[in-house]
Amino acid sequence: MKQFDFQIGRCIFLRLDYGKDLLEQLSEFLEMEGIEAAHISGIGAVRNAEIGYYDQKMREYVKRRVEGGLEILSLSGNVSLKDGKPFPHIHAVLGRDSEIYAGHLFAAEVFACELFIASLDGDIPVRELDELTGLHLWI
Amino acid sequence: MKQFDFQIGRCIFLRLDYGKDLLEQLSEFLEMEGIEAAHISGIGAVRNAEIGYYDQKMREYVKRRVEGGLEILSLSGNVSLKDGKPFPHIHAVLGRDSEIYAGHLFAAEVFACELFIASLDGDIPVRELDELTGLHLWI
Amino acid sequence: MKQFDFQIGRCIFLRLDYGKDLLEQLSEFLEMEGIEAAHISGIGAVRNAEIGYYDQKMREYVKRRVEGGLEILSLSGNVSLKDGKPFPHIHAVLGRDSEIYAGHLFAAEVFACELFIASLDGDIPVRELDELTGLHLWI
Repeated sequence: MKQFDFQIGRCIFLRLDYGKDLLEQLSEFLEMEGIEAAHISGIGAVRNAEIGYYDQKMREYVKRRVEGGLEILSLSGNVSLKDGKPFPHIHAVLGRDSEIYAGHLFAAEVFACELFIASLDGDIPVRELDELTGLHLWI
Repeated sequence: MKQFDFQIGRCIFLRLDYGKDLLEQLSEFLEMEGIEAAHISGIGAVRNAEIGYYDQKMREYVKRRVEGGLEILSLSGNVSLKDGKPFPHIHAVLGRDSEIYAGHLFAAEVFACELFIASLDGDIPVRELDELTGLHLWI
Repeated sequence: MKQFDFQIGRCIFLRLDYGKDLLEQLSEFLEMEGIEAAHISGIGAVRNAEIGYYDQKMREYVKRRVEGGLEILSLSGNVSLKDGKPFPHIHAVLGRDSEIYAGHLFAAEVFACELFIASLDGDIPVRELDELTGLHLWI
């Protein structure tokens, strides 16, 4: 186990803009505000999402594009440093009616999205390639 | 993007009462305690839930009632002001065995429910009608 | 309703070890660090999970084992005391591609897992048998 201790910093409600990509807006905000470690949670609705799951044997993400409007049923993850920039690692459960699509979130056009960002003060975790899994993890 | 900055206030574990509505109990608690901004997360089990998704073209919620016992697989959202009162905006993933039902949470009878409430101190966001989406968003 | 008030303590990012059980690692960490109340959230990927739902009529957990690699789409819950030890109560939504498995988390072999732990300072809730539901709840 590898542990990173923090004191909680300022907390933010962020209402994202209609029609723009969720992750691009979040990344832009984190850079602008200098937030390098954070816990993220959110709800809302998106359109035309790209999600994926990591094929643990093939060691690559299998991506899938979902068209149309989708509720954000759950969105959670964290922020740490990757390649010197704040990197949001986000998983989401999306859906409408009885259809559910979920995975690592790669892209989604915002319809309405309300994020909770708890910034964290302390030693910032850095993502680097982990040989065992093929993923970029906190080393 | 629209941003609201807070310092985290007191945090609460709230065990809801058996047999009563989840959102009614939460709203009553928030009013009683004067909590106007918060992050919410929870788990547990409910019965006879009403969930829905927002039809982005028709601009209305499509609601669905699910009978019987259901695990709360994920429950998350936020609290802000709407019509002068603390308003919990909650999305949930509910289910049993291989059945999953998820959406904006309108009602659910509590079997057992444990909420985490992180109250937030700062300028309180207010929900008002957003013409673009037809939703009540932070203006 | 039963309420427990806390001040937030230190927050932790915990990267779990590959190949070992998720809950065993979390429980070991909580005991080692003396964390008796906390909010938990996490993402990542696991293998060979055991999840379940509580049959509210039969008053027992119906468990199910899922083989193979699975994304952690959502993982959330809390920590309180049960039998004198820190007890993590965790619900998870797991899945790959269009398959979703979700429930109370009993076991899962970690592939990669990043937990957010917000420790809480205050009167620690204790779980005891609740006659009404057959569950161990905060009394």
